[in-house]
Amino acid sequence: MLPTYECVLEAARRLEGVARRTPVMTSRTANAMTGAELFFKMESFQRTGSFKFRGAYNAIAALDEAARARGVVAFSSGNHAQAMAHAGALLGAKVTIVMPHDAPAIKVAATKGYGAEVVVYDRFREDREAIGRRLAEAHGYTLIPPFDHRDVIAGQGTATKELIDEVGPLDRLYVCLGGGGLTSGACLAASALAPDCAVWGVEPEAGDDARRSLEAGRIVTIEVPKTIADGAQTTALGALTFAILEVHAAGIVTASDAALVETMRFFAQRMKVVVEPTGCLAAAAALAATDIAGLRVGVIVSGGNVDLARFCALLGEAPSA
Amino acid sequence: MLPTYECVLEAARRLEGVARRTPVMTSRTANAMTGAELFFKMESFQRTGSFKFRGAYNAIAALDEAARARGVVAFSSGNHAQAMAHAGALLGAKVTIVMPHDAPAIKVAATKGYGAEVVVYDRFREDREAIGRRLAEAHGYTLIPPFDHRDVIAGQGTATKELIDEVGPLDRLYVCLGGGGLTSGACLAASALAPDCAVWGVEPEAGDDARRSLEAGRIVTIEVPKTIADGAQTTALGALTFAILEVHAAGIVTASDAALVETMRFFAQRMKVVVEPTGCLAAAAALAATDIAGLRVGVIVSGGNVDLARFCALLGEAPSA
Repeated sequence: MLPTYECVLEAARRLEGVARRTPVMTSRTANAMTGAELFFKMESFQRTGSFKFRGAYNAIAALDEAARARGVVAFSSGNHAQAMAHAGALLGAKVTIVMPHDAPAIKVAATKGYGAEVVVYDRFREDREAIGRRLAEAHGYTLIPPFDHRDVIAGQGTATKELIDEVGPLDRLYVCLGGGGLTSGACLAASALAPDCAVWGVEPEAGDDARRSLEAGRIVTIEVPKTIADGAQTTALGALTFAILEVHAAGIVTASDAALVETMRFFAQRMKVVVEPTGCLAAAAALAATDIAGLRVGVIVSGGNVDLARFCALLGEAPSA
Repeated sequence: MLPTYECVLEAARRLEGVARRTPVMTSRTANAMTGAELFFKMESFQRTGSFKFRGAYNAIAALDEAARARGVVAFSSGNHAQAMAHAGALLGAKVTIVMPHDAPAIKVAATKGYGAEVVVYDRFREDREAIGRRLAEAHGYTLIPPFDHRDVIAGQGTATKELIDEVGPLDRLYVCLGGGGLTSGACLAASALAPDCAVWGVEPEAGDDARRSLEAGRIVTIEVPKTIADGAQTTALGALTFAILEVHAAGIVTASDAALVETMRFFAQRMKVVVEPTGCLAAAAALAATDIAGLRVGVIVSGGNVDLARFCALLGEAPSA
């Protein structure tokens, strides 16, 4: 059954006083560049450095006592891992994370730092879902997938709920999109709180499976995309996220890696914030949009977890702005 | 005559709806490191990227119409320049800035971008105050010094007023200190709003003139210090800032350049914000303090204007945390 706005409200109650109510930032420069009034919801300041904490905490909190005591398992390219590890520690659940061998070092270290057990796999040769399911069966763990899960989607929706609660109705909302958890949660919140708001998912140019899926009317699966947006290297939407996006999303646009780097530079140089490449997807689309003059536009900045060495290397490789 | 808390209140009225009410950030990691409850007042998010906008705007707004029409002149190592340029543009005053030849490129460009005229001088051989005074006499400009000025100090005090208004009384407050404008403003606000709060100025180890001045009971002048904290390369306190600090400040501590780099890394990696070296002074002292367990501690983060190339070079040169 698809999650609804009621599920987002329930998640908001669970997250009250636990998740950080992240700030909404504005930039006169960004407004001047686009002619729009932009509201950046800074999930880079969320606990564990990304919005993923919302969904992970909500999903673990929704389990019954016995299931929580047995433990949970997750597969993740990084931010969902840290989120699950931290949420599990807060809720007293044992957490096991199945993680790709090439996940950023900062994310692996942070996940272990929160007390989770990490099981590594080869992202290009092994099936993480199968590994996760095997562990779940062997130990009685509950598998919490990174996006295609009712409580995860509902939890992610609370970011958009907070944004609209704080700044009022929006004409348009850009959301970073990998597997679609954040964007479908945004759809649930926006359709209830700002029904005229057009919600756009933004995915990497090299991994435009969601755009192709909405065009085809079915879930299109692609190869693991090569992009600096490591949090959006998903190969397909999930059944739930696809179903929600098909009904509610205005559409999907893409951003190139070069645009992500320039957006990362804009955030650091002009807005004084560190945003990871994946977290730049929505802002890259907003800053490139030529049809938003006069509109009130929300931008969900999904996360800030990037090694400083990688951050500097990415900025150094790009042409100076 | 020394400015008073009444002057801070007057500045707050002038700045209402003009200056950004910057966010107060917290960090569980920083709290765990120190045992204290730390409140970071993020003036790096202020208009023009530093607290200097507050004092500059307040000083220009306090001028009568005729003086504003003739124009203002300022000498500055950077952030005061941008602040004056932007405040002048907002208030319709012509602004001329006397700026050192080696000021960071980002600050020179930003100053010109706001429409100010820039006059360059050699920081190690020429006297910027004399140049500023000559321009003032020749053109009828009003000279607005970067710190030793009643309305500038009062304007800077509004940052501390906002912090205490938002989080309540503090036991201790660390403030970045160059010429003492921000710290003496903090003293005026804290002494009125949180009389038990000990206000500590934090200056670069290589430029500890304020510490020596308070110890000596007179203004001690030093050579231009070599430090990465380019906003705190002042050689002496001013008459006003010294008088206020002598009465109200609990004392002065220093931070080494190495500690500033590690604090810059902490801000970027853990708190996801870009802070310039000078802006790290207060936080470096707070994070190194061994006597603040159990206390409520404010930290004024003064600015975020640092070239990304310099930011990355500084982080690259330091040992990895």
